[in-house]
Amino acid sequence: MTDRVVLAYSGGLDTSVAIPFLADETGAEVIAVAVDVGQGGEDMEVIRKRALDCGAAESVVVDAREEFAADFCVPALQANALYMDRYPLVSALSRPLIVKHLVAAAERFNGTHVSHGCTGKGNDQVRFEAGLAALNPALKVIAPARDYAWTRDKAIAFAEEKGLPIDVSKKSPYSIDQNIWGRAVETGFLEDIWNAPIEDVYSYTSDPARPREADEVLISFRSGVPVALDGRPLTPFQIIDELNQRAGAHGVGRLDMVEDRLVGIKSREVYEAPGAIALITAHMELESVTVERDLARYKRSVDQRWGELVYDGLWFSPLKHALDTFIADTQKYVSGDIRMTLHTGRAVVTGRRSEASLYDFSLATYDTGDAFDQSLAKGFVQLWSLPSKIAAARDGRLG
Amino acid sequence: MTDRVVLAYSGGLDTSVAIPFLADETGAEVIAVAVDVGQGGEDMEVIRKRALDCGAAESVVVDAREEFAADFCVPALQANALYMDRYPLVSALSRPLIVKHLVAAAERFNGTHVSHGCTGKGNDQVRFEAGLAALNPALKVIAPARDYAWTRDKAIAFAEEKGLPIDVSKKSPYSIDQNIWGRAVETGFLEDIWNAPIEDVYSYTSDPARPREADEVLISFRSGVPVALDGRPLTPFQIIDELNQRAGAHGVGRLDMVEDRLVGIKSREVYEAPGAIALITAHMELESVTVERDLARYKRSVDQRWGELVYDGLWFSPLKHALDTFIADTQKYVSGDIRMTLHTGRAVVTGRRSEASLYDFSLATYDTGDAFDQSLAKGFVQLWSLPSKIAAARDGRLG
Amino acid sequence: MTDRVVLAYSGGLDTSVAIPFLADETGAEVIAVAVDVGQGGEDMEVIRKRALDCGAAESVVVDAREEFAADFCVPALQANALYMDRYPLVSALSRPLIVKHLVAAAERFNGTHVSHGCTGKGNDQVRFEAGLAALNPALKVIAPARDYAWTRDKAIAFAEEKGLPIDVSKKSPYSIDQNIWGRAVETGFLEDIWNAPIEDVYSYTSDPARPREADEVLISFRSGVPVALDGRPLTPFQIIDELNQRAGAHGVGRLDMVEDRLVGIKSREVYEAPGAIALITAHMELESVTVERDLARYKRSVDQRWGELVYDGLWFSPLKHALDTFIADTQKYVSGDIRMTLHTGRAVVTGRRSEASLYDFSLATYDTGDAFDQSLAKGFVQLWSLPSKIAAARDGRLG
Amino acid sequence: MTDRVVLAYSGGLDTSVAIPFLADETGAEVIAVAVDVGQGGEDMEVIRKRALDCGAAESVVVDAREEFAADFCVPALQANALYMDRYPLVSALSRPLIVKHLVAAAERFNGTHVSHGCTGKGNDQVRFEAGLAALNPALKVIAPARDYAWTRDKAIAFAEEKGLPIDVSKKSPYSIDQNIWGRAVETGFLEDIWNAPIEDVYSYTSDPARPREADEVLISFRSGVPVALDGRPLTPFQIIDELNQRAGAHGVGRLDMVEDRLVGIKSREVYEAPGAIALITAHMELESVTVERDLARYKRSVDQRWGELVYDGLWFSPLKHALDTFIADTQKYVSGDIRMTLHTGRAVVTGRRSEASLYDFSLATYDTGDAFDQSLAKGFVQLWSLPSKIAAARDGRLG
Repeated sequence: MTDRVVLAYSGGLDTSVAIPFLADETGAEVIAVAVDVGQGGEDMEVIRKRALDCGAAESVVVDAREEFAADFCVPALQANALYMDRYPLVSALSRPLIVKHLVAAAERFNGTHVSHGCTGKGNDQVRFEAGLAALNPALKVIAPARDYAWTRDKAIAFAEEKGLPIDVSKKSPYSIDQNIWGRAVETGFLEDIWNAPIEDVYSYTSDPARPREADEVLISFRSGVPVALDGRPLTPFQIIDELNQRAGAHGVGRLDMVEDRLVGIKSREVYEAPGAIALITAHMELESVTVERDLARYKRSVDQRWGELVYDGLWFSPLKHALDTFIADTQKYVSGDIRMTLHTGRAVVTGRRSEASLYDFSLATYDTGDAFDQSLAKGFVQLWSLPSKIAAARDGRLG
Repeated sequence: MTDRVVLAYSGGLDTSVAIPFLADETGAEVIAVAVDVGQGGEDMEVIRKRALDCGAAESVVVDAREEFAADFCVPALQANALYMDRYPLVSALSRPLIVKHLVAAAERFNGTHVSHGCTGKGNDQVRFEAGLAALNPALKVIAPARDYAWTRDKAIAFAEEKGLPIDVSKKSPYSIDQNIWGRAVETGFLEDIWNAPIEDVYSYTSDPARPREADEVLISFRSGVPVALDGRPLTPFQIIDELNQRAGAHGVGRLDMVEDRLVGIKSREVYEAPGAIALITAHMELESVTVERDLARYKRSVDQRWGELVYDGLWFSPLKHALDTFIADTQKYVSGDIRMTLHTGRAVVTGRRSEASLYDFSLATYDTGDAFDQSLAKGFVQLWSLPSKIAAARDGRLG
Repeated sequence: MTDRVVLAYSGGLDTSVAIPFLADETGAEVIAVAVDVGQGGEDMEVIRKRALDCGAAESVVVDAREEFAADFCVPALQANALYMDRYPLVSALSRPLIVKHLVAAAERFNGTHVSHGCTGKGNDQVRFEAGLAALNPALKVIAPARDYAWTRDKAIAFAEEKGLPIDVSKKSPYSIDQNIWGRAVETGFLEDIWNAPIEDVYSYTSDPARPREADEVLISFRSGVPVALDGRPLTPFQIIDELNQRAGAHGVGRLDMVEDRLVGIKSREVYEAPGAIALITAHMELESVTVERDLARYKRSVDQRWGELVYDGLWFSPLKHALDTFIADTQKYVSGDIRMTLHTGRAVVTGRRSEASLYDFSLATYDTGDAFDQSLAKGFVQLWSLPSKIAAARDGRLG
Repeated sequence: MTDRVVLAYSGGLDTSVAIPFLADETGAEVIAVAVDVGQGGEDMEVIRKRALDCGAAESVVVDAREEFAADFCVPALQANALYMDRYPLVSALSRPLIVKHLVAAAERFNGTHVSHGCTGKGNDQVRFEAGLAALNPALKVIAPARDYAWTRDKAIAFAEEKGLPIDVSKKSPYSIDQNIWGRAVETGFLEDIWNAPIEDVYSYTSDPARPREADEVLISFRSGVPVALDGRPLTPFQIIDELNQRAGAHGVGRLDMVEDRLVGIKSREVYEAPGAIALITAHMELESVTVERDLARYKRSVDQRWGELVYDGLWFSPLKHALDTFIADTQKYVSGDIRMTLHTGRAVVTGRRSEASLYDFSLATYDTGDAFDQSLAKGFVQLWSLPSKIAAARDGRLG
């Protein structure tokens, strides 16, 4: 039986070239699998056909948009996942989903190998291969860009030699990965970290300084899941999509950072994630109203670890799974509405209301109706500070 | 010998009234101590005389502005201290400094008691009394607002009865605490957390939406300490002060949140901290360039704990001290320049450069000059994901 | 309607005296509730009648032994809960259970108040009252020993005055709390921390140095729950009880420590917990075989926090609940057998076997059958150490 | 100029064979470096000469015993370093020291390469190469056992072919690494984790069950450093050495575990560390007397991370350095005496005394002299439990 390679196919130059290359190199048939995670851009049917034109034995498109939003973006939202306090894990979230569908395709089409276009110095190779190791370790991995040291020039030459139906002339200066949760941009001139991004880099967001009327939005959550905008019930995918438009129009969610990659180097990355940033801002605010103090403090460290694990490619790890159960428990009462103004690059919360609020006006107010018994405070303060007091006395005694 | 009470004096109604009240209640002489932490507003000499006019036996003003900036704000900056990821600890930072000067005054004037104006439901009582317990536990504490259940109405009546030189007519609707690191505002209508702040609440910041030319600033650090703006060497106090003006003019650093108080309740707080937010943003960026990955990841949890401890009044605790040594060690190489644009409520980093940078162009680039050996990646990826792979195989085996 | 006080009744002097005292002081009827958590000693029926003889309006005994073992000890076992790495939370575990039954009794008997015998310097007052605040905050608390400054001498005098059926002559020098999970002892001469405990202090354990045949036991777990000893299926209560006998006979589980109390002081405590220590030792070993590395590392910090929370009286807190869900997830595959030798004060694991083992002989062996691909290691090592290498080069460059 | 390889030389078969192998394979001269870390066994001078007899161009012995104890074991003691709560990092501590001396030798003898005998599935390769990457990344690494897939059989054949002065007949069934901090044993029959170790495995410890008089020892610390035994001032090396004898005679410090290796597998390991375990037990006890509660709680997580980092080969990492400063700060007051009984496999603390004690008899006692103000407790308890109370009320309200 002929070997079959299941290829994560994007429709771009590198993975298009990979089709004949893999066929030549391994003698295998190539099954192209393109997963729609809301990346927009080209028509998925055009992409599907291109793979066949490049020589794929089979070509499949999976519409995973709702699944991606519900099962990957929403957990990230519940974890307020911002790697290095900034990056909402755009690419890191889509890779495990793509792997899941590659494995499904391999099982459907009797695939023996899996192939991806990642290089050997990025994070995505880890996310692909760690996912495969967890979901189907029997599948062998071929990564042409890494294992055969493919470069763009080699790919173009190969495409021309093979007469592939790819327009290699319109070389974009940008290396881009995008999905419904955001967009990542790398490009040569940004590799000098003293250079600022130029407006041309951006696509999901308008210039935040452009004069424009502010937009007010009401975001509703049920148990940590966004369920409505301005009172209209919507799916998570629809909510992210609409907020990408509305927050993006005000330039919300531009990020420019020096990032610690798992492979041990620092790299310069520019991201846009208007919907993700607006949602995380709203979600954090609702948590501050509905989650108890000690739990909220602890959850910050869980959130951080969750983000690191997912960034590091360990979506399917036992620790990730256990952190998920912790986070799920914290979300039970994260229900209510957040009113937010989108304007000049900022998503600013202006109001919060919740049936599950732990904010108690009668305990908080300094006006009439104050129910807080201030006489309790003296004893609290003295025992709270007793260990420090005893230690300070000791330190003083010993000099 | 007559007892002497050292009073933390602000010049306002409550602590002015406290002077004759404490004298009446305890038979003690009152020593008023006003500490200048850059709160601006009234002339400190006027405040000093007012205490005498209210009956204080002694009245002292301490100019602690440079000390506050260098020894309290800079450590908070190095810890990127943002309680609940937002609040830069404005009041929490000044209280231990004020305590220090109260204790010094008590020692100088043979004080036996210390008094503060805090209520029994806020955080500041804890910060005062925990500080006193550490620095001089022999001093007894009197907190009229808490221990004698003083209210504003009682204070006004008492002031009128005593003929104190206080204008009690111009009652501000706002309860305010401010210093060079920021400004805190509480007020009745904000106790409904669905209400948005109004422009009138703010003083350190202009409306971020007001059209205005962007301001570009270059902030220079040496080992985690800000040392210059636009190349001009300045003290930390001067830098914070100038950034308060420049970032404040663009509406940077407005914060509106529901906060977990140490005494166990949630409260609504509005803050302005233009200089602090601009500096913390710049400092975090420089850390991302100069601090190694694992250290940076760990430091986030140290930073969080540092902020909680200081918020919780434990500035003088042994744990705070040990975290300080950790943070100090991380700052050794946090030197370099951050270029930042201040505009429409945002402080956006546009460039970073440092002799101590760990960003290595030759390892990061995808262009000519790439020094990263991609052949190492395969082994790394496989061993990195091996534990998850073994666990997934087990889980699959057992179903 | 007359007020009714529900009293946590132990049968000892202090809570016996509390019955007429509470009746006198409050005019209320007293409902005595004694909860059997496996404390052994006196017959529970004798205790029940004594309360009536002391004047209780109602007296109830709750046999909560299996519930205590299953719902309180087993979670502690799954958390490997050892406060300060030593103390298995004996008293801290029973208090929330007792509170639960007090609240149930209050609801059954229309109680309006709850009373306990704890002093104001221990941890148990917090555990009682924090539990009550969570389960039924409407119940008012009376703590005679704390709120009325009761002492043993006062209690004896009161008992004699009232002619209570309590033998006050046989004053034990020891203050003891015990249940199936262990036994706590405090006594005057141990308040000098240079003094060693004497043999007379102990009751659950024999002298570990006494010559005796070693005892080998096989402990079986299913998903983190102990289910059998030596192949005999047993309930958790039965397993702990039998191990208390068998491990106790070899002096396993004696603990002598200086402990950090929640109220801010250090105290000297002596404990015996033979069954708990043997079970925790076995459970940790089985985890090391069945729990993946990163999860195991993270779980240590969760376990520590769980133990601190329970020690600190926060059994019913939201954070405790969320940590429980994390721990529950980790236990899914903690199934298998641990063979252990009990001898001379030690519980030593000598073998472990599990269907769910992650130990893979073919990967671990250095003999024939080695399946580990050593060629992967070089790449792994180099990328693993790359961040440190880059940092070291920087440090060297800057001196 | 000829290349020179600096070889970490143990005197055993593998590294003896490596000498001619490296010479053949690389054409380089071999410099053998044997580091004395208190491993005992053979005379170091005999080892030095054997390297020359095997063809080394130079052979050096470094007596690093005091350095190892003071700079590697003492920091581990201060971190109470027990990987997986059990293993005191025996081999993990010596590797960075050996690397340091290899690098020094390379600089002295103009070495261009460094070689070690580690395989590709253990931790030590990482510790060697991560250390080299930090201390001198210009040195190239050759690891014959890993990179040339050497096996014991190949080594014996090569030794015979070359006529090396090595007795290859007396094959030990045990693979052993030992130093003053402990001894590690691996062997075929222990690779079945159901098998118990046999007495023959042990060398540093006697059978703990063997009847023998108990030994009482007084261990004195100054700022976390052990400075005397039974009042006799000694160096750290002398203290560990003497405790190895005395605690070893009573069978203290035997460890048998399934361990999570950095390379991703679980392995079975048996260790003996009588001195280390006795010292860590004493040190933890003195910390519980002298370290403030919140600091002690936090330090546990720092200690755990320190142990993981060192286990994982990151001795020279920036994070390890910063954790060191934290730990150093905690040790300032860890001074005093611990009295300990060594008997039947246990090191049991029986008394502790310290000028720097935070144990305050007057606060802890329940007898005459009690200085604790119990009236403070009520307020403390109520505010301590307030967040849980508010959350429980919310949960009840929402069902």
